[in-house]
Amino acid sequence: MSRALIIGAGGVAGVVIHKCCQNSEVFTDICIASRTKSKCDKFKEELQDKTKTNITTAQVNADNVPELVALMKEYKPDICINVALPYQDLHIMDACLECKVDYVDTANYEPEDTAKFEYKWQWAYRERFEKAGITALLGSGFDPGVTGVFCAYAQKHYFDEINYIDILDCNGGDHGYPFATNFNPEINIREVSAKGSYIQDGKWVETEPMEIKRVYNFDQVGEKDMYLLHHEELESLALNIKGIKRIRFFMTFGQSYLTHLKCLEDVGMTSIEPIDFEGKKIVPLQFLKAVLPDPASLGPRTKGKTNIGCIFQGKKDGKDKTYYVYNVCDHRECYKEVGSQAISYTTGVPAMIGAMMILTGKWKKPGVHNIEEFDPDPFMDALNKWGLPWTENFDPVLVD
Amino acid sequence: MSRALIIGAGGVAGVVIHKCCQNSEVFTDICIASRTKSKCDKFKEELQDKTKTNITTAQVNADNVPELVALMKEYKPDICINVALPYQDLHIMDACLECKVDYVDTANYEPEDTAKFEYKWQWAYRERFEKAGITALLGSGFDPGVTGVFCAYAQKHYFDEINYIDILDCNGGDHGYPFATNFNPEINIREVSAKGSYIQDGKWVETEPMEIKRVYNFDQVGEKDMYLLHHEELESLALNIKGIKRIRFFMTFGQSYLTHLKCLEDVGMTSIEPIDFEGKKIVPLQFLKAVLPDPASLGPRTKGKTNIGCIFQGKKDGKDKTYYVYNVCDHRECYKEVGSQAISYTTGVPAMIGAMMILTGKWKKPGVHNIEEFDPDPFMDALNKWGLPWTENFDPVLVD
Repeated sequence: MSRALIIGAGGVAGVVIHKCCQNSEVFTDICIASRTKSKCDKFKEELQDKTKTNITTAQVNADNVPELVALMKEYKPDICINVALPYQDLHIMDACLECKVDYVDTANYEPEDTAKFEYKWQWAYRERFEKAGITALLGSGFDPGVTGVFCAYAQKHYFDEINYIDILDCNGGDHGYPFATNFNPEINIREVSAKGSYIQDGKWVETEPMEIKRVYNFDQVGEKDMYLLHHEELESLALNIKGIKRIRFFMTFGQSYLTHLKCLEDVGMTSIEPIDFEGKKIVPLQFLKAVLPDPASLGPRTKGKTNIGCIFQGKKDGKDKTYYVYNVCDHRECYKEVGSQAISYTTGVPAMIGAMMILTGKWKKPGVHNIEEFDPDPFMDALNKWGLPWTENFDPVLVD
Repeated sequence: MSRALIIGAGGVAGVVIHKCCQNSEVFTDICIASRTKSKCDKFKEELQDKTKTNITTAQVNADNVPELVALMKEYKPDICINVALPYQDLHIMDACLECKVDYVDTANYEPEDTAKFEYKWQWAYRERFEKAGITALLGSGFDPGVTGVFCAYAQKHYFDEINYIDILDCNGGDHGYPFATNFNPEINIREVSAKGSYIQDGKWVETEPMEIKRVYNFDQVGEKDMYLLHHEELESLALNIKGIKRIRFFMTFGQSYLTHLKCLEDVGMTSIEPIDFEGKKIVPLQFLKAVLPDPASLGPRTKGKTNIGCIFQGKKDGKDKTYYVYNVCDHRECYKEVGSQAISYTTGVPAMIGAMMILTGKWKKPGVHNIEEFDPDPFMDALNKWGLPWTENFDPVLVD
C-alpha cells in the first residue's frame, strides 16, 4: 500500500496518472494536484471507474512551499512525483524535506531567468536528503531517465569500460501541420538556438547552435538529420560511468521545422521583448504561440514513431565492443492507450517506474541521486512490462 | 499656369510632390490632401522654401465623394493626381466627373473584398468622362505606366506588328534585413500567393502561384530569379497593341524572401482572420506588420538598383525583330534626391509626367484611357529629363 502525490496536470502528468492507475498494486492511492484543480478532476473523472487506485485531487501552487507542505501534511504521501515545471523543482524538494517524502522528477531544475540546465542546484540537497532519510531520484523521464538506465545496464552487463556514448533522440512523428511545436514553443526555440556542447576528456566542448549535424538511419523510422545539442544528462553520466572519453547527445529535427523556426526568429516573432501594439504591450512569442496549433491538439493527429537510445563503444575482456539499446514508441498507439502521443508517453512511463522503484524498496537510498547510480535491472524489466520495450543491437552503425 | 490636387501622402505621393516642385513651370500650384493633414504639412514644410510651386494642404477622406467634391470646388484644380489607395479610385473619379477635373492614377481600381485587378470598373466611366470633356489617364506609374509607354514606343518606331511582349520587373535592392516588405506586406503577400496568368492568343492562361520561374541576367543588377505573375497592364496591352500572340509579366523575388513569406503563411501569421488574444481580437497580419521593419525605414538603408523594362519580338518590313527597352534606377540616388527609394521613385515620377502630359495639352483627350493609347514620344523624352532614363538593346537575351 502506498500513497503518491502527483504534482502537475499537463501531458506528462496525464501519462503518469494513467500508468499509476494501471499499476494499482503499487499505487493504491494517488493525489493529483495542480494550480488548476479542474484539470486534476478531469483525470479523476476519466479514470476512477476503470482503476482500483483511489484518486483524490487538490489545488496547489507548486511555487509556494508552505502550500506544498500543508498538502503533504494532509495527504501524507510516501512519494511525490514532480511533473510540474522545471522551475519548481527546488520548491517541491524543500517541501519533501520538511515532510520527509521521497521525491522523483523528470527534468532538472533550471532557474527561470538563466535557461541553464545544470544539476548543481539539486545536487546541493544531497546531504539534507540523506540526513532526512529520504530518496530523491532526479531525471526519471526518457532523456534524462531511461538513457541513464541504459548506460548503467551497458556498464553492468556488457563493458569493463565505456569510452564513447552517443545518445540519439529521434522523433519521426508527423502531425501534418507545416509547423507546430510539441510543447511550449519557447522551449523548442531555446533548444535549437542555444549553443551545443558535449563532454570530451572530462571537459565541456562548446559548438555553435546546430553546428554538428549527422544523418542516421533509425530502426522503424528511417533516415533522419540529427544535430548535436547540449543535454543535461551528459553532466551526470560523465561522472558516473567509468572510462568515458566522450559523450554526446543528438536530436533529430526536420529541415522544414528548422527553416520555419529560423524565419520566425528572423522576423522577430520569437522575441520575448514586448512590442507596442494598438496601445498594448505584446510579447511576439506569446502571440506566435496563440497562432500556432495548440500542442495538446497534436496528440490525436500525430503519426509515426520515436526511437531513442544510446550507442556505446568500449572494452570487454580487453576487446573492443559496441552496443546499441533503444526504444521505439508509436505515437498513435500511445494516444490510443493514454490520450497522449509518444513525446509525453516516453517521459511519463519512466516517471511512474522510477516512483515504483522507490516505493517497492528496490531503489530506496537516502540522498539525491541520478538514475544511473541505481541497479538498472528491475527498471529495464519494468520498461518491457509497462509499455517501453527495448531492443539491443551488438553491431550498430556508429556516429562519426 | 496650372493647379494640381495630389491625393495621398505616402511614399509615392512624396515622390510626386517632390517632382512637381522641381517642375514649377508646369505645376505652379499644388494642393496636397490626405486623411492625415499633418503628413501633407510635413511635405509643405520641407519643400516650400526650395520651390516656386505654391503649396497648400488639405484634409480629405478619399472614400467620401462629397468631401472630395467640396475640396475640388474650393481648390479648383485642373487635374487630380490620385496616389491614394486603389480602393479609392472610383470615388475620386466620381468627384472629378462632378467637378470636371482631369484625372491620373498609378494603379487600377480593385474592390476591397475581391483582390481582383481588372480595368472593367474604370473603363465603365469612359462615356461619362468623354461627355464631360475631361481626360482620365489610368495607370501612369512604372508598371503599369512606363511599360505601356515602352510598348507604344516600340509599336510606333520599330515594329509593324509585335507578337510577344515580356515585361521584366527586377528589384535588385538590398535593405540588409533577413525579411522586410517594401510596402504593405499584405499586398506583397497577396501578390506571391495569387495565381499567375498571362495572355496567349487573346485568352488568359492561368498558372499556379509562382509556377513559372526563369532566371535572367539584368543589366547593372546581375542574375536574378523571376516569376510569372498576373499584372493589370496585360489586359489593356493585349487590346491596344497590334498582333499580340503572347504577353507575360515577370517579377524578381529572392529565395530568402519567398521562404520567409511561405513560412509566415504556413504558421498563420499572414492571415487576415482575427484570433482571440488576451481578450482582444487581433489580426495576425496586422501584428506581423507591427513586428516587421516599417517600410518607411527601408529607404535610407536600401542599396542596389531596379531594372524594369519590356522585351519585344515581332516583325518589321517582313523580317523578325527583337527590342528591349528598360530603365535602371539606383535606390540610394533616389533616396538622396527625394527621400524615397527606387520603388516609390519609379512610380511617382511617371505620375508627375502623366499629369504634365495632360496639363500641357499633349495628351488631352476626353474619355478614360490607358497610357499606351497616347503618343509615347513626349513621355519618353520626359523620362530622360525627369530622372528615369531608358536604355535600348536590339539584340537582347530572350526569355523562353
